[in-house]
Amino acid sequence: MYHILSCEQFSRAELEELFNLTDEIRNNLPAYRTALAGKLVATIFYEPSTRTRLSFEAAVQRLGGCIVSTENAKEMSSVIKGESLPDTIRVIAGYCDAIILRHPDVNSAREAAAVSAVPIINGGSGSGEHPTQALLDVYTIHKHKGAIDGLTVGIMGDLLFGRTVHSLVKLLALYENITVYGLSHDVLSLPEEYVSYLEKRGGRYIPCRSFWEMPQDIDVLYHTRTQTERFQNSDLQVEEFVVDRQVMSYFSPDTILLHPLPRRHEISAEVDADKRALYFQQSHNGMYVRMGLLYNILGKGAEK
Amino acid sequence: MYHILSCEQFSRAELEELFNLTDEIRNNLPAYRTALAGKLVATIFYEPSTRTRLSFEAAVQRLGGCIVSTENAKEMSSVIKGESLPDTIRVIAGYCDAIILRHPDVNSAREAAAVSAVPIINGGSGSGEHPTQALLDVYTIHKHKGAIDGLTVGIMGDLLFGRTVHSLVKLLALYENITVYGLSHDVLSLPEEYVSYLEKRGGRYIPCRSFWEMPQDIDVLYHTRTQTERFQNSDLQVEEFVVDRQVMSYFSPDTILLHPLPRRHEISAEVDADKRALYFQQSHNGMYVRMGLLYNILGKGAEK
Amino acid sequence: MYHILSCEQFSRAELEELFNLTDEIRNNLPAYRTALAGKLVATIFYEPSTRTRLSFEAAVQRLGGCIVSTENAKEMSSVIKGESLPDTIRVIAGYCDAIILRHPDVNSAREAAAVSAVPIINGGSGSGEHPTQALLDVYTIHKHKGAIDGLTVGIMGDLLFGRTVHSLVKLLALYENITVYGLSHDVLSLPEEYVSYLEKRGGRYIPCRSFWEMPQDIDVLYHTRTQTERFQNSDLQVEEFVVDRQVMSYFSPDTILLHPLPRRHEISAEVDADKRALYFQQSHNGMYVRMGLLYNILGKGAEK
Repeated sequence: MYHILSCEQFSRAELEELFNLTDEIRNNLPAYRTALAGKLVATIFYEPSTRTRLSFEAAVQRLGGCIVSTENAKEMSSVIKGESLPDTIRVIAGYCDAIILRHPDVNSAREAAAVSAVPIINGGSGSGEHPTQALLDVYTIHKHKGAIDGLTVGIMGDLLFGRTVHSLVKLLALYENITVYGLSHDVLSLPEEYVSYLEKRGGRYIPCRSFWEMPQDIDVLYHTRTQTERFQNSDLQVEEFVVDRQVMSYFSPDTILLHPLPRRHEISAEVDADKRALYFQQSHNGMYVRMGLLYNILGKGAEK
Repeated sequence: MYHILSCEQFSRAELEELFNLTDEIRNNLPAYRTALAGKLVATIFYEPSTRTRLSFEAAVQRLGGCIVSTENAKEMSSVIKGESLPDTIRVIAGYCDAIILRHPDVNSAREAAAVSAVPIINGGSGSGEHPTQALLDVYTIHKHKGAIDGLTVGIMGDLLFGRTVHSLVKLLALYENITVYGLSHDVLSLPEEYVSYLEKRGGRYIPCRSFWEMPQDIDVLYHTRTQTERFQNSDLQVEEFVVDRQVMSYFSPDTILLHPLPRRHEISAEVDADKRALYFQQSHNGMYVRMGLLYNILGKGAEK
Repeated sequence: MYHILSCEQFSRAELEELFNLTDEIRNNLPAYRTALAGKLVATIFYEPSTRTRLSFEAAVQRLGGCIVSTENAKEMSSVIKGESLPDTIRVIAGYCDAIILRHPDVNSAREAAAVSAVPIINGGSGSGEHPTQALLDVYTIHKHKGAIDGLTVGIMGDLLFGRTVHSLVKLLALYENITVYGLSHDVLSLPEEYVSYLEKRGGRYIPCRSFWEMPQDIDVLYHTRTQTERFQNSDLQVEEFVVDRQVMSYFSPDTILLHPLPRRHEISAEVDADKRALYFQQSHNGMYVRMGLLYNILGKGAEK
């Protein structure tokens, strides 16, 4: 493991290893407090994804590393003066031991990795990948369900533009006997490529039109925000599938409810108190998964 | 002491304890250099109050803690996508051990505290509270006058919109035999609620129309900037009460001159060299008072 | 050495001492990892020069110091409210042990130094000085050529507005028997004051109109970006002198190629693989030179 560019780079064994390491760190925080001592990580964000940035910066510092940061890289004077992304990366790689990059271009992380003298961690590349989000989603499922083989997972909301559900489907496909239920409006249904990706690896995909078409004892509900900002037809009105107390009462006490956040109205505030609502824990897990990744990348090597 | 939301939450005894702790830390900095080791504090600023932020971040780090920071939280992608303040706080609280929040809404700090898993420190809530500013003001008076009971204090400038004078009056009211002189134009005079707050607690309030109506041996002069940006009638012209060398010559050698800064023209630059002009020391004191607060909140508990 | 305001403040002996210290630190990084322990440095940038800021912040932290930072100081609320630079500096100096200042005004660094209780390091003062850039340029030449006396140096591109070539010429003038070749269009030629500055100190200046007028065995080529944003006549079209593989083939195997970056098209990407192309190493060197400076200023004194 060197660059972290895509959730597709992980094998099932690597995922399990990462999740074990994450739990090991989480359960022994004081033992890892200087694991990255002397390491400096740059967070270079061309888009203001404050939460991903704060989570990574917390992870680095909780392991004893240091941070240099820009939350508005697209206004860097060098960028305004016409510098290419590879040049920017080459320069910043000279100051630090790893770069966490958020950039609107789908190929940005790969382009950066091609020239960087230090590891690149993709903190979100436009409408493409956001691998650490996918990892924390699967980690959360793994943590609460114990295992992933054989699970039934409902994905809901914006299955067309939702980057996180696409990555989730790809990672779930690493496991055996997975059944995914997809609840969305027709115009926002899961693209065929993800359906076939899952089916080729032995999973099943079952589209639904209401909560009640999903089994009551479904293991995981994964809701997402409708990304209206990506609609080409801005007049398109899509009624949200809202998870409220009534919907939750339909499902089993063992069904867990996840959401990558931010949410708007698709999960009612009244659901927050439900013990099955794990989206804030899920977000919190993100810091620990990132600690696991960072430890893997920077914590074992010799001092620079 | 857990959340720091309002200057009204402090008793006189708590103030004295905080001031003693502040002096103890200040006089023994090396002994406190690792007091917050392993603690991570988030500074989440929806308004660019760089100075308050830098002062807090200096305080945390001088105690050995770490920082994650955003100086432009209102452009956080989660906020733009419609996330509520409580959701944002719940997420960020999962990464850190305390949150310092600056937000334009008067109720923001209380709203955050209601959902946060970690202490909230109000770094300024709109036109409402800015409790650490009030604390550093009273600390400065206490430090230079030895005690606060019986003091005469002139508050000047914008007594209508000046959040800092309102908080100062409330904290002074905790002490005995306080006399406050209020120098302002009629349209910017101290709201009646603060006058009665003081009087109900045994203090006196005496409005003035010129420096010369204040006693020459007044203990403290506290000047403020006229907040013209808050005038509803933008044509309103208000001549400032300018403290210059001549004004300072009227007052006693023991009168101290404070100002929350930034100043514009209401204190002439020629006054800066006067030993009674303590506004830069006052600002400097802010870092130490914040160290005291942070130590109280984060420095004594068990390791997370 | 206290404030770092101008490249002109350095004697030749001080440069050599700084370069030796830089190499000493660079070759013994672990020994210097706590050299600035307990020191807090503020980076106050009124212009978004992310790279200079990141490089300084990396330098401070690699020496064990801490950082408080603003990348957008001109939107500080205090500045918007009309605070003067000296007041801002006086306040921030109360929080930290040194201030790195980037500001658009030519006199900003001197103005700050006049009132600051802590050292000011000029991180770029408008079209005026950027002393640490000049130091890293000369350090890079010194490192790769072993000595600077007697060198031939080609400066190219925008010699009129190029702040970095002006500072380079001034520092080179400290050495003996220097020959500078200046390649630029007529409208962008080196101002007479720098030519005479060099000649008064025993150097020679030879203007050129093509690469082929420079000697093939020239020691150093220093290219710069044409700062079209500073042209008063925006219709002015200036064809760049482009260094490509063909141009590099004209020069000796010992000629080194530098550039302060960012570059646009004036150095072709195909040149990056040439071993003589040292601009990314040059940029990397900047962090180490800044470590040397910071150690000089903050690393030896008593604890604050």
